[in-house]
Amino acid sequence: MSTFVLVHGSWHDGSAWQAVISQLEAKRHQAFAPTIAGHGKGVNKNVNHAQCTQSIVDYIVDKDLTDIVLLGHSFGGTIIAKVAEAISTRIRRLIFFDAFVLNDGESLRDNLPFPTQELIDDLVEASGDNTIMMPFDIWRETFLNDADLDLAKSSYAQLSPEPYQPFIDKLDLKQFYSLPIPKSYLYCTEDNVLPQGEWGWHPRLSSRLGLFRLVQMPGSHEVMFSNPVGLAEKIIVAGRD
Amino acid sequence: MSTFVLVHGSWHDGSAWQAVISQLEAKRHQAFAPTIAGHGKGVNKNVNHAQCTQSIVDYIVDKDLTDIVLLGHSFGGTIIAKVAEAISTRIRRLIFFDAFVLNDGESLRDNLPFPTQELIDDLVEASGDNTIMMPFDIWRETFLNDADLDLAKSSYAQLSPEPYQPFIDKLDLKQFYSLPIPKSYLYCTEDNVLPQGEWGWHPRLSSRLGLFRLVQMPGSHEVMFSNPVGLAEKIIVAGRD
Amino acid sequence: MSTFVLVHGSWHDGSAWQAVISQLEAKRHQAFAPTIAGHGKGVNKNVNHAQCTQSIVDYIVDKDLTDIVLLGHSFGGTIIAKVAEAISTRIRRLIFFDAFVLNDGESLRDNLPFPTQELIDDLVEASGDNTIMMPFDIWRETFLNDADLDLAKSSYAQLSPEPYQPFIDKLDLKQFYSLPIPKSYLYCTEDNVLPQGEWGWHPRLSSRLGLFRLVQMPGSHEVMFSNPVGLAEKIIVAGRD
Repeated sequence: MSTFVLVHGSWHDGSAWQAVISQLEAKRHQAFAPTIAGHGKGVNKNVNHAQCTQSIVDYIVDKDLTDIVLLGHSFGGTIIAKVAEAISTRIRRLIFFDAFVLNDGESLRDNLPFPTQELIDDLVEASGDNTIMMPFDIWRETFLNDADLDLAKSSYAQLSPEPYQPFIDKLDLKQFYSLPIPKSYLYCTEDNVLPQGEWGWHPRLSSRLGLFRLVQMPGSHEVMFSNPVGLAEKIIVAGRD
Repeated sequence: MSTFVLVHGSWHDGSAWQAVISQLEAKRHQAFAPTIAGHGKGVNKNVNHAQCTQSIVDYIVDKDLTDIVLLGHSFGGTIIAKVAEAISTRIRRLIFFDAFVLNDGESLRDNLPFPTQELIDDLVEASGDNTIMMPFDIWRETFLNDADLDLAKSSYAQLSPEPYQPFIDKLDLKQFYSLPIPKSYLYCTEDNVLPQGEWGWHPRLSSRLGLFRLVQMPGSHEVMFSNPVGLAEKIIVAGRD
Repeated sequence: MSTFVLVHGSWHDGSAWQAVISQLEAKRHQAFAPTIAGHGKGVNKNVNHAQCTQSIVDYIVDKDLTDIVLLGHSFGGTIIAKVAEAISTRIRRLIFFDAFVLNDGESLRDNLPFPTQELIDDLVEASGDNTIMMPFDIWRETFLNDADLDLAKSSYAQLSPEPYQPFIDKLDLKQFYSLPIPKSYLYCTEDNVLPQGEWGWHPRLSSRLGLFRLVQMPGSHEVMFSNPVGLAEKIIVAGRD
């Protein structure tokens, strides 16, 4: 049985994994879902990428979790790469789940297609506080394209504004790219949050991992809501030895 | 419950949707399948793209259909874009189903890879009457790759020559690209009618829609024959709010 | 009922098809799985591509098999193209199954991305006898990404070193590209042995076939081990008229 640590993406907090954790536990795995610093409702959003990373490192070290399968979703991929550098000996395998895999020296924003960069920049400016709120129509059509309107609405109600600074911090990832930790990339075939093709998640970002295990499933960027049962099964496949 | 208007592609007429309509009606939706001008057996094939569009506009207006989900298959994508310009207030959502999405000022032919252009040109010349007949081996291997030979034959018997003029008419689509109507792209993952990759349906053509909902299903370009049950389910997913 | 001849890929011998053959026979097809010269355990690995081809030609002629559906997996695609040139009248259809389709004058190695060429070259040098042994971590993560560790291990135990010379022989394929034999390409959507995208199996290699039938299924490069039931079903779909 494995110990999973699931790191959420932007606009989310750890509660996004609730249904997935129930499924993993039902199959006698352990699973933890920390909330990244500056994420969740009613918290101080003034954080940078290093603080985000440190909050996950602290969670794992405080709980003294070892031999973990560490999964990062979306933005969470940038976090687990840096967490792996900090506490590599605690990690059995990394799973990048529709996640950013940055080249050394890049920021998340550097990996967005130009129209998305513009959209993000407009939203940051509109916020007045260096955060990004998710517009509902983008959530409904692009993030939860496989869900009905009710689920799109109820999941949207769980979101909170995303701090912008971690999107633009350039990451030193030289150590990450020398770590011998096994890696998987889990890709949902209807995920269009990064537009499929030239700027897509896979194979553009996955291929940066070098040797990795590809796992795919049908569904959107947010299958933790639209298909938690199927997602849990694929996390197990991606995470096993 | 929704009102669907299903616009067929080249070589077809409205009867292609018969099994799909039965499925949609069984789930208590309304569905209509007009035949585009110049299409179907035994009719005058001397039509241009504007006449094709007008015939669908007339059908919808004559029946006074409102709040419709308007779907276009293949060539039908070029029709629904122009229909949407003409009667935008009657349309709740557009679904492009393995369909052409033309850039402003382009023709359908402009969007074909060069070998397909050559093939089409040869077939037009062979026809002697500015139409294109579908060769059976292309139908069987490329259009109905997921069907058995019997279904390939029986569906082939329903086809009729396609008028060529609508393929080469250049379309003014400036208004279309400013319409606020929600859009979906439904893509069959084994559709190889446009060769997958650089010249494929998705993401090459889908991405022109801007914000759109991606829905995928297994199957060929002609799943209305090979899998009408599955297609109806995905049309409902693509068409819901 | 069809007669299938299944030509294995690198590191394998004919025994790789055992479970698939059982499935095909259960559906009242005939199926044969010859071992390519220089392949299998304990044999002389000093062969070139022409000798590999000749061994399959001899097998088919010796058994006087006619009207066959000839399938090549991976490296086996380079074999069936040359077998088809030699005995075209015995072949009803060709199936390329996650297989190399070489351009006239090319070698298999010419079709590998540069990092894979380098890896292969290192393994050849390490062998000391002009063969390539499969590293287990690559087998487990890249070839059998859809299997559990036990299956990855048991299937690995069936492998033997691959002769290198057939990878670098340049093939004259002018005749192949003029043969009127119908062709199918069967692609597993999680096959990452050739990295998906620019250097992938499909559509890069499949599209060289000209008119062909595309058939897809979920799974890895080695679904003959991880899903022989599903593979047999898709071989039947790819191989029917």
